[in-house]
Amino acid sequence: MPRPDIRFCRLCGTPTEQRVPPGEDRERAVCPACGYVDYVNPTAVVGTVPVWGEDGGAVLLCLRAIEPRRGRWTLPAGFLEYGETLAADAERETREEAGARIELEGIYTVLDVVHAGQVHVFYRARLLDLDLDPGEETLEARVFPLAEIPWDELAFLTVRRTLECYLADRAAGIGFPVHTEAIPWVPRP
Amino acid sequence: MPRPDIRFCRLCGTPTEQRVPPGEDRERAVCPACGYVDYVNPTAVVGTVPVWGEDGGAVLLCLRAIEPRRGRWTLPAGFLEYGETLAADAERETREEAGARIELEGIYTVLDVVHAGQVHVFYRARLLDLDLDPGEETLEARVFPLAEIPWDELAFLTVRRTLECYLADRAAGIGFPVHTEAIPWVPRP
Repeated sequence: MPRPDIRFCRLCGTPTEQRVPPGEDRERAVCPACGYVDYVNPTAVVGTVPVWGEDGGAVLLCLRAIEPRRGRWTLPAGFLEYGETLAADAERETREEAGARIELEGIYTVLDVVHAGQVHVFYRARLLDLDLDPGEETLEARVFPLAEIPWDELAFLTVRRTLECYLADRAAGIGFPVHTEAIPWVPRP
Repeated sequence: MPRPDIRFCRLCGTPTEQRVPPGEDRERAVCPACGYVDYVNPTAVVGTVPVWGEDGGAVLLCLRAIEPRRGRWTLPAGFLEYGETLAADAERETREEAGARIELEGIYTVLDVVHAGQVHVFYRARLLDLDLDPGEETLEARVFPLAEIPWDELAFLTVRRTLECYLADRAAGIGFPVHTEAIPWVPRP
C-alpha cells in the first residue's frame, strides 16, 4: 500500500523517489543520496481483557477521553513501543489507562486491521482488585457485568470481536483458544 | 528506545527535534514546521513451520542466500507489509522463499525480539506436496526429518525456539498451544 505522503529521507533530508529497490517486488520511498529505504510496516496495538470474579463474569472497560472514538468504551490497549515486549505493553496500557493491577493470562486474539495498517493483540488478564485510577486518556474506568456490556457504545471493532470471543468461549466452557482473523473494513455512519 | 538517526521530517523535509509530544511520556522526532511525529514501532516478521507427512515428522527449511545469516537454515519468514494480513504474509513468504504450497494451520509462536525491534510470528502449516522451487533469497529448500534438523546451522533464535516448541509439543501429543515469550539477546561469537 503506497504512502505518497512520504517525500523526504528521514536520515539525510533529501527528497525521496518512489521506486522498486533491487530484489524487491514493490515501490518504496528510496533516498537517491544515501540509499535509505523507508519501509512502511503495520504497527501492533496491544491490550487486555481484564476480567473480575471467580467466574470471570465481569470485564473492565475504559471510556475514551481522546480521539479517535472519544466517549466510547474500549478495552485498555495502545501502540507497542520500540524496546518493549507485547506482554509489557499490555500491562502498561492497562495500568496507564485504567490504573488497574492485573495478572496476565494467555494471548487471546490476534486481529488484522488491514485498512488501518495495524495488528491488534489482546491478552486475557485477571484484575487483582477494584482500585481503579484512570489516566488522562480515560474519562472513566468501570467493571461491567457481562450482561451489561455497552455493545452499541464500543470504540473499535477489534474490541467488540474480542469481547464476543470471550463471551462465546466462556459460555462453551472449553477454555480460551487463541483467535486469529482479519477484521473487515466497515464504513462508519 | 531512541533512534538518533532520524533527523528529518519524512513529510516536509524540515530537520526534526527530539522532544516529548503533549500527552506522551517519551521523546520522539517531532517536526517543528508541520507537527509530524515520527513514531518508531517494532515490525512484525511472519513465517511458517511447514511440516510433511501424516505425523508431521519432517519440516521444510530454507538455506539463506542473503544477509543476514547467509548460508544458514531458516523457516520461511519475512516482514509483514502494509495492507497485508499475518496469514497472507505467512503464505507469501513460504511461496516466495521455498516455492512451497501449504495449508495454513493455527498461529503457533509469537516471540518478542526486543533488541531488534521485532515481533516474530510463526504459523503451523502443512506442505501439500514436495514440489519446491526456491526463490532468489534461498540457496536450497529441503525437507528435513525432525531427527536431522541442523540445529547448529540455524539462522535465527526464533527459528530455533519455534522448532524446539514444535518437537516438544509433538512428542507430548497434546496438541499445539500458542507459545508467547521474549527471546533473550545473545551476543554472536
